[in-house]
Amino acid sequence: MKCRTCGERALINLRRHNAGFCKEHFNEFFIRQVEKAIHKYEMFDYSDKIMVCISGGKDSLVLWYLLHKMGFDTTGMYINLGIGEYSEKSLEKVNAFTDKHQLRSIVVNLTELGHPIPTLERHVKRHACSICGTAKRYYFNRVANENNFDIVATGHNLDDEAARLMGNTLKWDEAYLAKMSPVLPAENQIKKKVKPLIRLTELEVGAYAFMNGIDYITDECPKSVGATSMIYKNALNMMETEMPGTKHYFYSEFVRKAAERFKSEKKRKI
Amino acid sequence: MKCRTCGERALINLRRHNAGFCKEHFNEFFIRQVEKAIHKYEMFDYSDKIMVCISGGKDSLVLWYLLHKMGFDTTGMYINLGIGEYSEKSLEKVNAFTDKHQLRSIVVNLTELGHPIPTLERHVKRHACSICGTAKRYYFNRVANENNFDIVATGHNLDDEAARLMGNTLKWDEAYLAKMSPVLPAENQIKKKVKPLIRLTELEVGAYAFMNGIDYITDECPKSVGATSMIYKNALNMMETEMPGTKHYFYSEFVRKAAERFKSEKKRKI
Repeated sequence: MKCRTCGERALINLRRHNAGFCKEHFNEFFIRQVEKAIHKYEMFDYSDKIMVCISGGKDSLVLWYLLHKMGFDTTGMYINLGIGEYSEKSLEKVNAFTDKHQLRSIVVNLTELGHPIPTLERHVKRHACSICGTAKRYYFNRVANENNFDIVATGHNLDDEAARLMGNTLKWDEAYLAKMSPVLPAENQIKKKVKPLIRLTELEVGAYAFMNGIDYITDECPKSVGATSMIYKNALNMMETEMPGTKHYFYSEFVRKAAERFKSEKKRKI
Repeated sequence: MKCRTCGERALINLRRHNAGFCKEHFNEFFIRQVEKAIHKYEMFDYSDKIMVCISGGKDSLVLWYLLHKMGFDTTGMYINLGIGEYSEKSLEKVNAFTDKHQLRSIVVNLTELGHPIPTLERHVKRHACSICGTAKRYYFNRVANENNFDIVATGHNLDDEAARLMGNTLKWDEAYLAKMSPVLPAENQIKKKVKPLIRLTELEVGAYAFMNGIDYITDECPKSVGATSMIYKNALNMMETEMPGTKHYFYSEFVRKAAERFKSEKKRKI
C-alpha cells in the first residue's frame, strides 16, 4: 500500500477513505479532518478562549496537542476522579504532557472536594459511568464559568459518538436524540460545547498519538467494565468492517437530516 | 430450565422473555404473540379474505399454518421465481404443505410469464434481491386485486424487520423510515399489507416449525449471497445476546414513537 499523496510506503490504510498514508500525509489528513469539523459545525475561532477537557487518554491529549499546534488559545482542564491507581496514572500522563509542551492546565481534585467517584457510587444507585458523566459535566461548566472560557472542547471521537447514537437510537430515546450534536450552543450558564475529533475514528486518533509521540494512558477505566457503549462500538465495528464508512455516514447523516426531527417534544401530526 | 407455565422440562429458553417453555406452552405463547400483533396493529378480522404470501420458507408456512388454525379465511399465494433448483425445491415444499393441510393456493410462474428472476437480473442493473422484491410486490398486488382479497399477509419476522430498520436507520433514509410499519394501509389499487409474525424472532419461528412438524425449505436463496440484511442481522444478534430484548424494543419503540417523525417530506422547523 502506498501513500495516496506522495506514493511512498503507507504506514496506515484507511479503508473508509480507500486510501493509505505515510506519516507526513496522515498528519495532514488528520489535521484537515479537525479543521473541517471546526469550520463545518462553526465550533470556534482564534478569538475564543478554549478549555480542553483532558482525561490523560489518547483522544483528549491528541485534541489538546492539535488545537495548540493550530494556534488556538487553549487551557487544559483535568478532573482527578479519585479512582485509585487509574486516576494516579492518568494524572502522571497529563502532567508529563503539560510539562513537555509547556501548556496551562487547571486541575480539580474530587478527593480533596470530598466526593471521589467511588464515594459518589456508594451513595447513588446508578452505573459509575453515569455518575462520573454528571460530575464531569458539572465541573466542566463550573470551571469554564469561573475562568471565563468561551468554549468547552472534549475529545469525543467518531466511535464514541456513533456508539452513543446507536444506544439512543436502539431505544428511540427522543430527548437524548434531540441533544446529539458535535456542537451544543451556549445556554444560560452552560458554555458552548464542541467535539472537534468527530470526523476521526478511535483507530485514527490512536495512530495519530502513536506517530506523534503523544504518551497517554492505555488502561481502560476500571469502572467502565460492562459499559453498554462497548457493545454498541463492537456492533458498529462489525458493520464498518463489512461496509467501510458506515459509522461516519450513520453519524453525519443523523446530524444533517434526522436530528431536527427529534427536536420537538410533541409528536408531529401528519 | 423449566416451563414457566407448567413446570415441566422446558424445550426452549427465551432469554428476552426470561422464560422457558415446554412444547405445549411454547405453542400457546407463540399464538398469543401473533394474536397480540393482529389486535394491537388492527391487522384484520374474521370477515377478511386473507392472501398469505408463501415462499416455502419457515416464516410464510408457519404464518399460513397458524392463520388457518386460528380460523381465518386464507389462501396461499406462491410465486415461482424461476431460480433453478432453489425454486423447484421450494415449490415442492409448498405443494406438500398445501396438500397435507388441504389448503387453497394460487401459483404465479415467472418463467411461464417470460421473466424469471435470472432474466430480469440480466436486464436490470440492480441486486437480485431488489429486483425480486419489486417483482413480488407487483404480483402480490395484482393477484390480490384480481381475486378480491382484502388483506395481503407476509411472514416477515422480528429479525427481518429489525434488520431492515437498522439498514434504513444507518442511512437515515427518511422515505423508507416513513414507510416502515407492521401494517401498511390500503391505498388506491394497493391492498392492506400486514406482518403478523412481527413479535416473533427467526429462532422462535424456526422452533415453532420444528415442534409442529412444518417442513420447509432450509436453503437460502442463492441470489441472496452478500445481501446486506445479513450484516444487520448479525449486528443485531450480537447486541441481542448481550442485551436480550434489544431487537423487539428497537422495532416496537420505532413504530410507537419515532415512525411518525419521519412521515413528513419536509423537515420540521424547531
